[in-house]
Amino acid sequence: MAEDLLGWTEIDTGTCSVARAVEILGDRWTVLVLREVFNGVRRFGDIQTHIGVSRSVLAQRLATLKEQGVLERRPYQEPGDRVRHEYRLTPLGRGLQPVLVALNNFGDQFLSGPDGPPVLLRHADCGALVSAALVCADDHRVGPREIRLELGPGARPRA
Amino acid sequence: MAEDLLGWTEIDTGTCSVARAVEILGDRWTVLVLREVFNGVRRFGDIQTHIGVSRSVLAQRLATLKEQGVLERRPYQEPGDRVRHEYRLTPLGRGLQPVLVALNNFGDQFLSGPDGPPVLLRHADCGALVSAALVCADDHRVGPREIRLELGPGARPRA
Repeated sequence: MAEDLLGWTEIDTGTCSVARAVEILGDRWTVLVLREVFNGVRRFGDIQTHIGVSRSVLAQRLATLKEQGVLERRPYQEPGDRVRHEYRLTPLGRGLQPVLVALNNFGDQFLSGPDGPPVLLRHADCGALVSAALVCADDHRVGPREIRLELGPGARPRA
Repeated sequence: MAEDLLGWTEIDTGTCSVARAVEILGDRWTVLVLREVFNGVRRFGDIQTHIGVSRSVLAQRLATLKEQGVLERRPYQEPGDRVRHEYRLTPLGRGLQPVLVALNNFGDQFLSGPDGPPVLLRHADCGALVSAALVCADDHRVGPREIRLELGPGARPRA
């Protein structure tokens, strides 16, 4: 890889991690389904009622998330009841948590109504508000203009 | 607000910050357009070529982002050339940076090909890799299961 010869605009963006992540994240409904599951709403009917989505749209989104390995469908049975299923995040699905927290922060900060946001995310340990913040592997807080783009091992020239 | 009487499933999710943020984030193309602008690609033709999107789709997404106040269109002129326009992030648009970094992290971690990701995000100061990490306002790192949901001032019962 002649990294020094290529810049961002010269590389093929087909393998870009943002593009791939967006394929998984899907559309608006998918994000709302993930929000519900992260918030502990795991059953088809409960998700459907809380989001206000049609059964067919929800079924399609859940099937895709299952296919992609984001959610898994697990049977559960309450005493005296028939077997039902609930949806659980896989490790891949859990990996989307910072994305959802970042979306939530953004909405809180810029899009809340006059009363403020309907939900607060708190650190269970200390109670302080949680955000998805830019940090580096050396544990510095990273300012918005302090990110430098560098071509990685998977960079390929554009066709 | 009788916060103690309501849980997540009892509140109206219409004002949820994640839902509102997703409205701004739009679809796949919108995210890719934002990625380009964050990476310094600001002109219509350059964005179009690099993403590989049709002119009409790009024009529509840019118009929406401008309407929503995420991007602004600024004239610029190189000596001897006609006036052109470029797209710049507004403060609202800059607020989406943690979302894009989180998407990038997720793609790097779970969806990269065998060669690894095409792009690395480095802290300009120290060179270490950047991520969008869960932290709290008291500066603790927050583990994936250490977030507690609490109803906020804008919580309203479901209709």
